[in-house]
Amino acid sequence: MIDIERIRAETPAASRLVYLHNAGAALMPAPVVAAMKQHIDLESDIGGYAAADRESDRLDAIYGSVARLLNAAPDEIALVENATVAWQMAFYALPFREGDRILTAEAEYAANYVAFLQAAKRTGVTIDVVPSDSSGELDVHALERMIDERVKLIAITWVPTNGGLVNPAAAIGKIARAHGIPYLLDACQAVGQMAVDVEAVGCDMLSATGRKFLRGPRGTGFLYVRRALLQRLEPPMIDHFAAPWVSRDEYRLRDDARRFETWENNYAARLGLGAAIDYALDIGMDAIEERCRLLAGRLRRGLAALPGITIRDLGRSPGAIVSFTMAGHGADDIVASSATAGITIGASDPSSTRIDAELRSLPHLVRASPHYYNTEAEVDRLVAHLADLTSR
Amino acid sequence: MIDIERIRAETPAASRLVYLHNAGAALMPAPVVAAMKQHIDLESDIGGYAAADRESDRLDAIYGSVARLLNAAPDEIALVENATVAWQMAFYALPFREGDRILTAEAEYAANYVAFLQAAKRTGVTIDVVPSDSSGELDVHALERMIDERVKLIAITWVPTNGGLVNPAAAIGKIARAHGIPYLLDACQAVGQMAVDVEAVGCDMLSATGRKFLRGPRGTGFLYVRRALLQRLEPPMIDHFAAPWVSRDEYRLRDDARRFETWENNYAARLGLGAAIDYALDIGMDAIEERCRLLAGRLRRGLAALPGITIRDLGRSPGAIVSFTMAGHGADDIVASSATAGITIGASDPSSTRIDAELRSLPHLVRASPHYYNTEAEVDRLVAHLADLTSR
Repeated sequence: MIDIERIRAETPAASRLVYLHNAGAALMPAPVVAAMKQHIDLESDIGGYAAADRESDRLDAIYGSVARLLNAAPDEIALVENATVAWQMAFYALPFREGDRILTAEAEYAANYVAFLQAAKRTGVTIDVVPSDSSGELDVHALERMIDERVKLIAITWVPTNGGLVNPAAAIGKIARAHGIPYLLDACQAVGQMAVDVEAVGCDMLSATGRKFLRGPRGTGFLYVRRALLQRLEPPMIDHFAAPWVSRDEYRLRDDARRFETWENNYAARLGLGAAIDYALDIGMDAIEERCRLLAGRLRRGLAALPGITIRDLGRSPGAIVSFTMAGHGADDIVASSATAGITIGASDPSSTRIDAELRSLPHLVRASPHYYNTEAEVDRLVAHLADLTSR
Repeated sequence: MIDIERIRAETPAASRLVYLHNAGAALMPAPVVAAMKQHIDLESDIGGYAAADRESDRLDAIYGSVARLLNAAPDEIALVENATVAWQMAFYALPFREGDRILTAEAEYAANYVAFLQAAKRTGVTIDVVPSDSSGELDVHALERMIDERVKLIAITWVPTNGGLVNPAAAIGKIARAHGIPYLLDACQAVGQMAVDVEAVGCDMLSATGRKFLRGPRGTGFLYVRRALLQRLEPPMIDHFAAPWVSRDEYRLRDDARRFETWENNYAARLGLGAAIDYALDIGMDAIEERCRLLAGRLRRGLAALPGITIRDLGRSPGAIVSFTMAGHGADDIVASSATAGITIGASDPSSTRIDAELRSLPHLVRASPHYYNTEAEVDRLVAHLADLTSR
């Protein structure tokens, strides 16, 4: 049972704002803010190197926290600047050749897709988009049929940036494993809103951010790479931390996933990330997931009852991202009018998931994303605000 | 004239510590700490996206601050996680082929050298080390003689991590320009301790960090790329910020240096970096450089008078990094005993500049790096502490 009152007390802005923009950047709980500010103060007091030395145990523990969050081992985790860097360090480490194929999904995120296009230009690899089934999820039977010996990567966004969709990550993992194909899962919008278990999912690489449903700081992210794959991947770029310079003409890559890191880091932000993960784990990911679905479901039911609103979500069991349009009102106007009413939501551009957006002829979407610290009353306030808009 | 009293008042730890570790991570002035903490508070108050929107003018202004620091244009600047990422984004963007040559210096930094080795393994490019002259600086005549049509990059660390050396960056720039060879300058230890002018130096790319002599936050860095080169360089990795996804099979790289960035960032750290640069520019880089040399010179004279101490610095006009060894005392022991006496200094491992270290048979070095906010009395305290150690 989640202690909403305590959690809201530890989220000071929750008393002033209806904050439903957790798929953008969630509100950080007080322990996250405190972890960062305390470390900045320590750096100011004794210098940046001494501060990192003094906090080395807590800094090391962050790898354990991420590992617990994912059901992985600490040496399979790299901490990096953001989810994009995490994803890139894995993706660009993979060797592609002319004729190889990458399989991805219709709602793949723009950041990843432009990297596919760059790899295609450089290496001749082909990008093949697996169609969705009638529910809007990636069609796992189609995926199975598309596999041949030329497929060198399955790269999927688990929870796309809009559309409510939760792709069938574990079913995809079964197929990837059966065929021995590396499987890179973008879990940016999944971590923090739902239980994530890399063993159950069967992914080989997973990238994620701190700032979204994990409630961590901006400018934090992490990469998981399965141990069996790790030591076969040479990072696309290295420094002397990733690969110590052991003799004049030789470097030696680290054995662990930190070969994907660089030496210098923002330790205050890292400590904030660690605090955010520990905070989520203390509450429990199953309880968080249940409450996210409860509130998102309530929001969808409320929206469905309003004239002029079209919910744009996909999939059999949509998650905490609720996307919709409203006849006669542009997405940006709805975001702005909501902000005036003290409600923070976001908008989503078709170019962020271009293939899905073109297939569905999507305009700009409104995106509302509740989290466990929100209340039923807050969800109802957004619905009431939109009802008021529709009736004008 | 530098107002040392005001500056020390704005550096609270200076009243408690003799902080001579500015080549590691300098003490941040109060406005840097305040900029970060205020932004974290704002993120906590209104959310991470709204906070970045509200501070967008100040965030944009950081590009102008870096540009002023370097005598460059704001569109030639990318803000990235650290100096290594800055350097990597430039280096790995360069196309090398079998038989091409990279020219570098004896004291090149380990992070860069392992990247050369990786490029050599991948592409067959050759790494050629330009010898030093009798003073220990890169020998510009030797450089000139080594140039042929196969040289595709000159990559130099301006101020190596140890050894006091200031390489002749501008003389190297003249040669690079005369031969039309791209010139990548690692200015990690140069920015913040001395005036930097990319026009005068003639470099095409320059990488730097925030945390050292600039007195900025950990986990900040920036890259300068000359406009004429910029649009010919495709970044080694891209996302939809660097290269918007303009149609299904097409991305379009940004026109400016931000093609080397990713979308997500730690804005609190960026604002700290901006505050640090503005702080330095307010004092004036010429005045800072003069005072750095004054204090480093005083330290070298003090050390030279002590029995058993060998100064390990190189070059005609050494900078603010003072490196030395002491007979009968290991570097780490000296660092520890100084810490006990309230004096913060550092040690430098031979593997961080392996070629120079092997040529000179260097052991671990003690590294003391004063900055403009230090006093003559602080420098003398370190000398007195070491005199006490030698006499034991």
